[in-house]
Amino acid sequence: MTRRLEVALGARSYPITIGAGLIDDPAHFAPYVAGRTAAIVTNTTVEPLYARRLGAALERAGARPFSIVLPDGEAHKDWRTLDIVFEALLRAQADRGSVLVALGGGVVGDMAGFAAATYQRGVAHLQVPTTLLAQVDSSVGGKTAINHPLGKNMIGAFHQPVAVVADTATLATLPARELAAGLAEVVKYGAIHDPSFLGWIEQNAARLLAREDDALAHAIQRSCEIKAAIVAEDEHERGARALLNFGHTFGHAIESAEGYGKWLHGEAVAAGMALAARFSVARGRLTREDAERLIALIERLGLPARPPSIAPATWLEYMGRDKKNEAGRVTLVLLEALGRAAIVKDTPPAALEAFVASA
Amino acid sequence: MTRRLEVALGARSYPITIGAGLIDDPAHFAPYVAGRTAAIVTNTTVEPLYARRLGAALERAGARPFSIVLPDGEAHKDWRTLDIVFEALLRAQADRGSVLVALGGGVVGDMAGFAAATYQRGVAHLQVPTTLLAQVDSSVGGKTAINHPLGKNMIGAFHQPVAVVADTATLATLPARELAAGLAEVVKYGAIHDPSFLGWIEQNAARLLAREDDALAHAIQRSCEIKAAIVAEDEHERGARALLNFGHTFGHAIESAEGYGKWLHGEAVAAGMALAARFSVARGRLTREDAERLIALIERLGLPARPPSIAPATWLEYMGRDKKNEAGRVTLVLLEALGRAAIVKDTPPAALEAFVASA
Repeated sequence: MTRRLEVALGARSYPITIGAGLIDDPAHFAPYVAGRTAAIVTNTTVEPLYARRLGAALERAGARPFSIVLPDGEAHKDWRTLDIVFEALLRAQADRGSVLVALGGGVVGDMAGFAAATYQRGVAHLQVPTTLLAQVDSSVGGKTAINHPLGKNMIGAFHQPVAVVADTATLATLPARELAAGLAEVVKYGAIHDPSFLGWIEQNAARLLAREDDALAHAIQRSCEIKAAIVAEDEHERGARALLNFGHTFGHAIESAEGYGKWLHGEAVAAGMALAARFSVARGRLTREDAERLIALIERLGLPARPPSIAPATWLEYMGRDKKNEAGRVTLVLLEALGRAAIVKDTPPAALEAFVASA
Repeated sequence: MTRRLEVALGARSYPITIGAGLIDDPAHFAPYVAGRTAAIVTNTTVEPLYARRLGAALERAGARPFSIVLPDGEAHKDWRTLDIVFEALLRAQADRGSVLVALGGGVVGDMAGFAAATYQRGVAHLQVPTTLLAQVDSSVGGKTAINHPLGKNMIGAFHQPVAVVADTATLATLPARELAAGLAEVVKYGAIHDPSFLGWIEQNAARLLAREDDALAHAIQRSCEIKAAIVAEDEHERGARALLNFGHTFGHAIESAEGYGKWLHGEAVAAGMALAARFSVARGRLTREDAERLIALIERLGLPARPPSIAPATWLEYMGRDKKNEAGRVTLVLLEALGRAAIVKDTPPAALEAFVASA
């Protein structure tokens, strides 16, 4: 069964298609690539698995495909790796009518998207996510970025793809640790927006971990629906979109403090959500029972609910660099209940400092 | 006398203000910077001349200004220099409400604009151009970019400023060579769009070279009016905006082949316009008399009308990388008459090759 939904952004609206075996079907690509040069941007892990098949589908869709293979991992999400993409495009004399096709996880999607946003001041791109995290989160919504040594995702652009094609069959080759990391973002959608979806995740945790296609496809669809609704309301993160960063302020600090690549993004978000839930309790917003229920789900999915040991000054330094901050105060997403979140801008610095000191 | 016009782009519309002494007047900045961190992005040449005065005006306008000083010159318009801006912004914990203020010529404006387009996925920026070229061209229209070793302006974004403040008094310190380079772009507007303005430039060439404020202010205003009208019609260069590239396809090839910084951009555009006019004659589009009249004006302004010696293969290689190209054919802007240009996409490669071989 192929599932289809739309991210409604006026002239920049685009479809998300979800199903098993989609990367072999030229029909999903032809409207965007026919007659064009199509650069498949992928990494050394994904390239041997899927690049040839995707290239064949693009060719049957009427494109002139070629591959650009990047080193794998968050540690490479930087300018140096991005320049591999630019140099390959320029050597191929790729013009403004060219299309970039991101084939891989969140790192590949972010870099291919940012390359598309800035190559010759902007070309089109498709997202073909092959990790659960990318299928439920990073491939949707147009956020693209690279990391800077002084902060994660600090250099980037809002640049929507022309289509997202999520082939659930590609999840079969995903390491268990990465599957769990993707489930962290699925849990996030339930926690911030949909208590009944959160209940469904609790009931179907074993099926999700066993990679049952029906369960995964439902989780992906519901996650994309929630993300699409929030993005349609606030494309450039001036308000509600910040809710999608639940767990991410603490999580980004973990990733930065530990060095990119040691913790997977989803793992850091999982620990970050647990921290944000605990801090919500400390601030009198959430009941202890609700926080413990969320933490129990995180643990059941094999995800970390405790952060590594980080000095309080380091926590505050990295949280102080978060893009949501305003006028020197850390902006946090806290829970009011399971399924309802709030953007909180007036946390007293002393309260946050005391919390991270005991975290 | 202060002159004011608007670039009409709906929600992204912005004013251009032209006059002597504007950088000292907080009223021109307050609407955009009050209560914000304002990073003055400038270079080692301009900083000692104007940064303190602009900083004082920004402070009186209610901002918290600080300066980021870059090395001077087109040779530094690259990622390494851009990273100086990112690092300074991150160290200052500049948030999304911060404003970048570009103080300098086209290189500073392009880099500050691209930094603003991509820092934390986009912050506001003001353009305070201090060269004639930046005042009549690069500060207006939202094109931002850095160079790549394989091509000029290949990495960038469309990111409109929130205001352009052109202080004509800053032109007093401009080297004569840079003044002439700016006049090349002024000539361009007449050549592509306005025969009577071209006549005015011919009649007032001596006054412009003598830097008479009235003459310069009129040239800047009329140039900005023409550019604003074309940009309002075609912000993202899908059609008519390409007319603004008259002389630039040949000119970019000269800059790339000679190495960034050896020829000033305006000088390369001057020689590029002369070549484009000659090629327009060769293609039977323009009379020889009109071409000679344009070339005579270029020479009268002290600008080069002949390119350096470049091998035909090198010409074609660099022209083949132009962003306007489609499907492997070089797009050229050719003249139909003085004051009327056309975008030409069907030039036979052999005709172009024969022309550059004899150029």
